[in-house]
Amino acid sequence: MIMNDNASSASPSHSELAQRIRAFVNERVIPHESTLARDDDAALTLQSALAAEARSLGLWGLYYPAALGGKVARLSDYLPIAEQEGRSEFGPEIFGGRAALDVRMLSLHGSDAIASRFLHPLAAGDAVSAYGMSEPDSIGSIPATINLQAQREGDGWRLNGRKWFISRARRADFITVVARTLADAPPQQALSMLVMPTDAPGFSILRDLDILGRRNGQHELLFDNVRLPQDHLLGELHGGMALMKQRLRLGRSINAAHWIGLAQRCLDLLGERVNSERGRLARLPDKQLIRRLAFITHQGIVSARGQLQLAAARLDAGLDGDMEVNMAKIAASHALNQAADNAIQVFGAEGLCDATPLSNIFRYARATRILDGADEVLINTVGRRILDGYGASAEQPAPQDALAGRETTLS
Amino acid sequence: MIMNDNASSASPSHSELAQRIRAFVNERVIPHESTLARDDDAALTLQSALAAEARSLGLWGLYYPAALGGKVARLSDYLPIAEQEGRSEFGPEIFGGRAALDVRMLSLHGSDAIASRFLHPLAAGDAVSAYGMSEPDSIGSIPATINLQAQREGDGWRLNGRKWFISRARRADFITVVARTLADAPPQQALSMLVMPTDAPGFSILRDLDILGRRNGQHELLFDNVRLPQDHLLGELHGGMALMKQRLRLGRSINAAHWIGLAQRCLDLLGERVNSERGRLARLPDKQLIRRLAFITHQGIVSARGQLQLAAARLDAGLDGDMEVNMAKIAASHALNQAADNAIQVFGAEGLCDATPLSNIFRYARATRILDGADEVLINTVGRRILDGYGASAEQPAPQDALAGRETTLS
Amino acid sequence: MIMNDNASSASPSHSELAQRIRAFVNERVIPHESTLARDDDAALTLQSALAAEARSLGLWGLYYPAALGGKVARLSDYLPIAEQEGRSEFGPEIFGGRAALDVRMLSLHGSDAIASRFLHPLAAGDAVSAYGMSEPDSIGSIPATINLQAQREGDGWRLNGRKWFISRARRADFITVVARTLADAPPQQALSMLVMPTDAPGFSILRDLDILGRRNGQHELLFDNVRLPQDHLLGELHGGMALMKQRLRLGRSINAAHWIGLAQRCLDLLGERVNSERGRLARLPDKQLIRRLAFITHQGIVSARGQLQLAAARLDAGLDGDMEVNMAKIAASHALNQAADNAIQVFGAEGLCDATPLSNIFRYARATRILDGADEVLINTVGRRILDGYGASAEQPAPQDALAGRETTLS
Amino acid sequence: MIMNDNASSASPSHSELAQRIRAFVNERVIPHESTLARDDDAALTLQSALAAEARSLGLWGLYYPAALGGKVARLSDYLPIAEQEGRSEFGPEIFGGRAALDVRMLSLHGSDAIASRFLHPLAAGDAVSAYGMSEPDSIGSIPATINLQAQREGDGWRLNGRKWFISRARRADFITVVARTLADAPPQQALSMLVMPTDAPGFSILRDLDILGRRNGQHELLFDNVRLPQDHLLGELHGGMALMKQRLRLGRSINAAHWIGLAQRCLDLLGERVNSERGRLARLPDKQLIRRLAFITHQGIVSARGQLQLAAARLDAGLDGDMEVNMAKIAASHALNQAADNAIQVFGAEGLCDATPLSNIFRYARATRILDGADEVLINTVGRRILDGYGASAEQPAPQDALAGRETTLS
Repeated sequence: MIMNDNASSASPSHSELAQRIRAFVNERVIPHESTLARDDDAALTLQSALAAEARSLGLWGLYYPAALGGKVARLSDYLPIAEQEGRSEFGPEIFGGRAALDVRMLSLHGSDAIASRFLHPLAAGDAVSAYGMSEPDSIGSIPATINLQAQREGDGWRLNGRKWFISRARRADFITVVARTLADAPPQQALSMLVMPTDAPGFSILRDLDILGRRNGQHELLFDNVRLPQDHLLGELHGGMALMKQRLRLGRSINAAHWIGLAQRCLDLLGERVNSERGRLARLPDKQLIRRLAFITHQGIVSARGQLQLAAARLDAGLDGDMEVNMAKIAASHALNQAADNAIQVFGAEGLCDATPLSNIFRYARATRILDGADEVLINTVGRRILDGYGASAEQPAPQDALAGRETTLS
Repeated sequence: MIMNDNASSASPSHSELAQRIRAFVNERVIPHESTLARDDDAALTLQSALAAEARSLGLWGLYYPAALGGKVARLSDYLPIAEQEGRSEFGPEIFGGRAALDVRMLSLHGSDAIASRFLHPLAAGDAVSAYGMSEPDSIGSIPATINLQAQREGDGWRLNGRKWFISRARRADFITVVARTLADAPPQQALSMLVMPTDAPGFSILRDLDILGRRNGQHELLFDNVRLPQDHLLGELHGGMALMKQRLRLGRSINAAHWIGLAQRCLDLLGERVNSERGRLARLPDKQLIRRLAFITHQGIVSARGQLQLAAARLDAGLDGDMEVNMAKIAASHALNQAADNAIQVFGAEGLCDATPLSNIFRYARATRILDGADEVLINTVGRRILDGYGASAEQPAPQDALAGRETTLS
Repeated sequence: MIMNDNASSASPSHSELAQRIRAFVNERVIPHESTLARDDDAALTLQSALAAEARSLGLWGLYYPAALGGKVARLSDYLPIAEQEGRSEFGPEIFGGRAALDVRMLSLHGSDAIASRFLHPLAAGDAVSAYGMSEPDSIGSIPATINLQAQREGDGWRLNGRKWFISRARRADFITVVARTLADAPPQQALSMLVMPTDAPGFSILRDLDILGRRNGQHELLFDNVRLPQDHLLGELHGGMALMKQRLRLGRSINAAHWIGLAQRCLDLLGERVNSERGRLARLPDKQLIRRLAFITHQGIVSARGQLQLAAARLDAGLDGDMEVNMAKIAASHALNQAADNAIQVFGAEGLCDATPLSNIFRYARATRILDGADEVLINTVGRRILDGYGASAEQPAPQDALAGRETTLS
Repeated sequence: MIMNDNASSASPSHSELAQRIRAFVNERVIPHESTLARDDDAALTLQSALAAEARSLGLWGLYYPAALGGKVARLSDYLPIAEQEGRSEFGPEIFGGRAALDVRMLSLHGSDAIASRFLHPLAAGDAVSAYGMSEPDSIGSIPATINLQAQREGDGWRLNGRKWFISRARRADFITVVARTLADAPPQQALSMLVMPTDAPGFSILRDLDILGRRNGQHELLFDNVRLPQDHLLGELHGGMALMKQRLRLGRSINAAHWIGLAQRCLDLLGERVNSERGRLARLPDKQLIRRLAFITHQGIVSARGQLQLAAARLDAGLDGDMEVNMAKIAASHALNQAADNAIQVFGAEGLCDATPLSNIFRYARATRILDGADEVLINTVGRRILDGYGASAEQPAPQDALAGRETTLS
């Protein structure tokens, strides 16, 4: 809705890309959403066909590195585009926006072997990637509990252990896993990232994990003496923790943009329903309590968008943006949950069943408050950092850059 | 948790009944919840077997009229029992608590034919009932939009039209439907209730309506020249609106008690998780933000319970309790949504998948904010009535009963 | 408003007392509130005259012990009466309800000397009491930081130190102070309560502390070698902590009832304003957002009242009611803040100035979220206790009293 | 705190101005706040001296038109500066930021007579202005109820009626009043703005209106046959309503920036308190519930800042920004209330008394939810406009500018 505001600071071509993505979502994706939401081969086939169509139109992988066909270099410029991708839950897959995270991580840190075997097919839309961090016995916010073993064996690695809540693992051609490469060390020095093809012997999918009844493609994985060559290590040995943070930062940012787009979609559905024949029969346009729901929904979206822009500006400038990214993640997740919830309330019982995409969006939204960092964990982290800033500044007042406050106090 | 407080004002036998229900739920129902949640014959068979077991233990139909085997006469006394029935989502079916509403409505208003054909089998657990009010083209809060036609034909009736979001219709042996019996009249004089056996020619189920992905047994129904004999009219001709209100009042009250029980169950799950090995590994017992979730959850439950007791006391005393019932409905629904949401947050990703009953409870809970009166509708109704009370009192100050305020001002 | 519900379980005389208090507040107190709110001698003179009038009508000290003229023995019975006392901010002083806490503490724990010198004048309305716990260098929620020294000197005590945020100290004839009687011991064994006449040499008032601009009579006190005789010790030597807890429990309960009454008063003002000529000019009765404010306000009051009744029932039964009292304190404080805030919003700018009592009530209300236990402290305490209960039950399931849950799990 | 982010898009001189304002507030204003908060001559004298000092440093009237000495032309550029002005409640007076609204209105619409008699002294800091809209019998959100009569008399006007809640009227040298210049016409054609010197015969101040106990300088005014020459008309005859809207738009924007600055000040106080010796004694830095307060406070500030920037960008571009301004007004007011409330909660009882500026800020903040547009009015207006947008778009889908959504749908 506020695209024009964003567009004003983007180059015309970014604005045009966003418009074209929007048109594609409206015309090619949304009409097929009920099919795409099914957990069957037809859904995957259709998704692939739409992705191929998007590629043929030059709308694929817009935020990939330029060498891999990307057209948008700065995160700030990508945000309005990503919002449009996100207006359908299936957009991020169809436009390669979901894969942008892996494409960027593998571009930055991958060996030549990783590049040729995994990165290039991924960037071309010929492979599907997944990421494996959570484990049945680990605590998401405590990396020290990660316990998938990657032991040296000859020139390579041998993996043993389990992962769970791994998205798209059943469809994935390869998985970047976080593994323990040093037994008795703090996580900063003990974890590494390794890229594993899913046809590796010893790897299997133990079970599918539905999310609020949706077969979203979350899985539990078994690694039983899986062997990997040495050059499948991503980045530095024992340097996995830094990569995890980098990945989280970028992943939260891209997700947040997609979620804001989806929240806007919910508001659009809400607004159209209010003005529909059925909405007018129920006199919804005149009801202050319905207007209040629209207000709250819109305010949540605008607020999240603003926070995400702040975060992107910092990341684009090479500054530490962890706090801003975390705030934007919470805000976007909150905006999406609120938008889906309010829209359902306006649709009434129809909002609960499959007559609209809201049933799926509502459940997808709920998961965003947990995956990639639960609300409570992030609130605690951000709150501590805000307060720590005042402790630091109290000790070294640094009056000369009082205005610059943020760097010295909140980092 | 606060059972003993309730129990103190109930006769010992009510307290004992609540204890026995609790034990049955813990030992016989909860261990089978994942089976009962499935939408298949095995689930229905198990549910019937458990209901038979409950009957054999004297735990069936406790809030039915005494003549039909009920053991609890006052709603106030039934509340603590209903909470225990509600601790599993499947309890209300298994203990006949879900049917209590139809049993009472048919007892109060049914003809002899209705009693022998529908009421007695229902009370004996040999029949399943449903209730049909909502229609695809009606607005739930505006009875004037109800449009199922019941035309006189000879001694009886001919039904034509559709209903939707009708719970349990596929399993039901009969359905009490709200129909229009007078064409051009306000709803207070135009609607009637009729009891229809589901094997009546012309009746069919058009489709199943999932609720947030759950095959809960909501359906859309077609009435195509369905014929009913005259004595299948429930209550007075054209008097359906008064029955709808009576039914809503009692139905909201019983549901609210079940929801509070289910909310307490969520808090129990939350508390046990915090104190589990996994919870202690994540240091949950020491985290103030987790304690806050427990506080909010408990507070919501206690608040809803108190409001429901107020409502029941008024209904038991034969007073107008509409406002109190509506408040209790909102409060219980809110408590349940909050409890399910907070418990999921504490369980993390596991709370989203099928490892716990929370995934089902969360989705069931969301529907309670819409079915039987959406939040916004009830907030508006109650708020108006509170304010109207001050208008009435302003006009007729009636100082002699200033203290009795509520009757004269808020009714 | 719900007086009749309460009254139904109270003896007729309690109901009648509540009605008479209500009439007195309406006719004798509310018309003089703007005078009573002033910080001058005229206000105190008027307050004394009204208190004398209440005494002459038998409406003074209703919750005092029977031997001191009280007429209500059980806290549960006093609650509806206390609500009526609280409908004006000045009621608790005028009816002796504010003093009930000191009357009861001194009755339970006072020596003969304390009884004759302090208790009897207080109960007769001839003396004003205060209570001194907080100190400039102490943390309210950490008793170990209390540091007023009471050293033995001959048969008696010598006090040195400071207290602050002590209500009514300038008007008080005596102050019960919490002092450290043992230097190096944990607070459970180190603190004692002593009763000090305010004309004791060495005692002085350092300054007045306004609360949000109100000269409410909060003060900072200096104890400079104040000498007290031995028999001015209240309760056991070094047993002050248990008395503090007892006092807090009862004080929070009585305050909560007064706050609920004041919240109801705000709702009454809100409702009357909506229905006033000015309210109708602004079409307030038709606005859903105004109805929502009325709903929220009423719901907060009903919820707090229910929680306070639970707490009182436990205290009357001699059970541990700490958790319930803390919850009721938070709920009543919240209800009052919300009611004052919503009423101001409905009055608009007039609600901010002195045209209504709301300006004073709003500021009084804000302090209740801090005094006698800040929200955050109580939420943490209650939340921990809820969660601890599940830890205990996990270790000793005690199935035989599973229903009694609360005692074994939440105490 | 996020100044550097803003600064990056501002010219260096804007950033430098903000820094210099910040330094002046820290060094010259904050140390004198308790004096400035008093309602006496000393406060006014000190304020004037500080304003003169600011002028001598080139920090006065930064957002005035360039011809009147202003240095910042675009609202977007002024926002970060205004935030710094607002960090003390007294900054907007001292830097001429409060007067900027009148300076701009008189510059745009004033006659030569108005310019020389009122505008130039005001811009030079030699006169104080006020604005008179609200009336004892009017409803703020319904301009049709404005009833101050301005009747033609010879070449000029004769004013009769009352105004109330007029800020600074006792100190003002002149007041811009909204008056009815046509009897029986809708407000769009009936109201005019007139500038009245406060020494005009017939004008008097009826009484002072405290705001939550603060002598903020709100007043009730009497106009008893006050005569004004013709050239004291501001703008077009009967064109007052358009001016009121223009004034509200700009006034809300400037106020919002000041409020955000004040909210940030509260967060700074909160953060410093947590890290103070007393805060560490209470272990505040480790408490998650305190971190949560910091998080919420910071999030509110960031969100309001982002919304205000959106609004300013639209106004600077000459676009309709009413909806954005209204949203920013609500957000900034909410952020300020929340910040003051949370900071008080962290300070405890000390936050309530005069030991910090919080007691004053808290009360000032509460008024912002009513003055210049009550929350409920604005939520309703914005919500309606959001929903109306979908109605408009439904009728004329205009697919070619789907992306530009906002203009066609939400204006």
